[in-house]
Amino acid sequence: MKSEPIIGVVGGMGPYAGLDLVSKIFGETVAATDQEHLPVALLSYGHRIPDRTAYVLGRVPDNPGTAIADVLVALESLGATVAGMPCNSAHMPPIFDALTRRLRAGGHSIRLLHLIGETIRYVRDALPGIRKVGPLSTLGSFRLGLYEKAIRAAGFKPIMPSVAVQTDLVDRAIYDPSFGIKAHSAPVTARATAMVLESMEHLRQRGAEAIILGCTELPLAVEVPSGGTVIDPARALARALIRETYPGKLRPL
Amino acid sequence: MKSEPIIGVVGGMGPYAGLDLVSKIFGETVAATDQEHLPVALLSYGHRIPDRTAYVLGRVPDNPGTAIADVLVALESLGATVAGMPCNSAHMPPIFDALTRRLRAGGHSIRLLHLIGETIRYVRDALPGIRKVGPLSTLGSFRLGLYEKAIRAAGFKPIMPSVAVQTDLVDRAIYDPSFGIKAHSAPVTARATAMVLESMEHLRQRGAEAIILGCTELPLAVEVPSGGTVIDPARALARALIRETYPGKLRPL
Repeated sequence: MKSEPIIGVVGGMGPYAGLDLVSKIFGETVAATDQEHLPVALLSYGHRIPDRTAYVLGRVPDNPGTAIADVLVALESLGATVAGMPCNSAHMPPIFDALTRRLRAGGHSIRLLHLIGETIRYVRDALPGIRKVGPLSTLGSFRLGLYEKAIRAAGFKPIMPSVAVQTDLVDRAIYDPSFGIKAHSAPVTARATAMVLESMEHLRQRGAEAIILGCTELPLAVEVPSGGTVIDPARALARALIRETYPGKLRPL
Repeated sequence: MKSEPIIGVVGGMGPYAGLDLVSKIFGETVAATDQEHLPVALLSYGHRIPDRTAYVLGRVPDNPGTAIADVLVALESLGATVAGMPCNSAHMPPIFDALTRRLRAGGHSIRLLHLIGETIRYVRDALPGIRKVGPLSTLGSFRLGLYEKAIRAAGFKPIMPSVAVQTDLVDRAIYDPSFGIKAHSAPVTARATAMVLESMEHLRQRGAEAIILGCTELPLAVEVPSGGTVIDPARALARALIRETYPGKLRPL
């Protein structure tokens, strides 16, 4: 096969979030024919990757980082030079650090872009003047302060949801087996959408000027117009993946 | 990596049609968690694959089957045992025969399911009693009788569009650079949708009892309720891919 760089996507966390990222890569590319689109490899091997939040909360023993690193090695074998994984929770340090260590130990050169870092960079580039940023995420990301720390480190003020909103609205909208987005995403249930919208309103009432939908299931539940103050990390990551491989093909903001 | 069979998808023809097939594989799977979903590898290398219709009409010299076979070999190297390609035109004999010859010559064992064959099988299984079947497709498929011959061989009566509808409505809805689905699929333009709907009405007036949207761009333009008399070949192929790998996970019709 030819040697042009391929954009790798670690899918399966969840399956539709992987598709959503690839769709956004296509959408952010300047292309009018099939041949003008960028080469993307998506490996959706969710069956091999333990739940990220369950691991961080101590409910499953195996570090998902091990399986994720194996997927990245498979992507590298296909010719991928850069990759992204559309799962915020997989970027929690206990998982992210384990997988980068494993890649380094194996001498692999594929570059995994950082979803949270790219999202903060997008806020800074696309929304100058904003100071208060409110993230919604899984309980695992919330407890570890995944977005909270990154927002603060970048000089913004993090606006966090209450513990009650986190557990009763955000987490149930994502995980509830009877109506949550992970179990019902095509289409998302009206109940899950209502819970996400209520959580966003809660952050706005607390002063958030921009809201990050910091779990890749969340943007499946609500419309996220591009250029607005609701940030979809997958879109930020899609743009970053193009910027790092074929910058001339990146659609202007 | 473990050795469970992976479902391979040859994407990029066009890019969104590849995503659409993968989405339908997920949608036709009985699964409530990330871990219960099936392993799927999507290689969207549309930049390497010449336009199928252009090749069959003699407008480009390279047979797309060569590049498609290379993608199938890459899928096999990942562990894919069965694959599908959501592009009706790529199943035209000059292309399909070239790629299967190339796979056989290389001693490869990956099984490529046949989109058109699986679609006809789906019509027979899901819509007993129907006799007149009308397909919409690209000009290349139309001229070669891709669906027409398969419909007749299966004992149905093919209902074909007029040449004027084929060229002025169907082909322009797919290919027109300013409003066609290939150039504008997220979202599809109102003009392309109207042209597809008018073409479907034309087939119904000619007597079609079921309509096959026989170019994978077409179902992106109109709602295709499952169980109805409008057939989305991608859905038929998605179900066939699950049936051939993990039949116990196939959602009942």
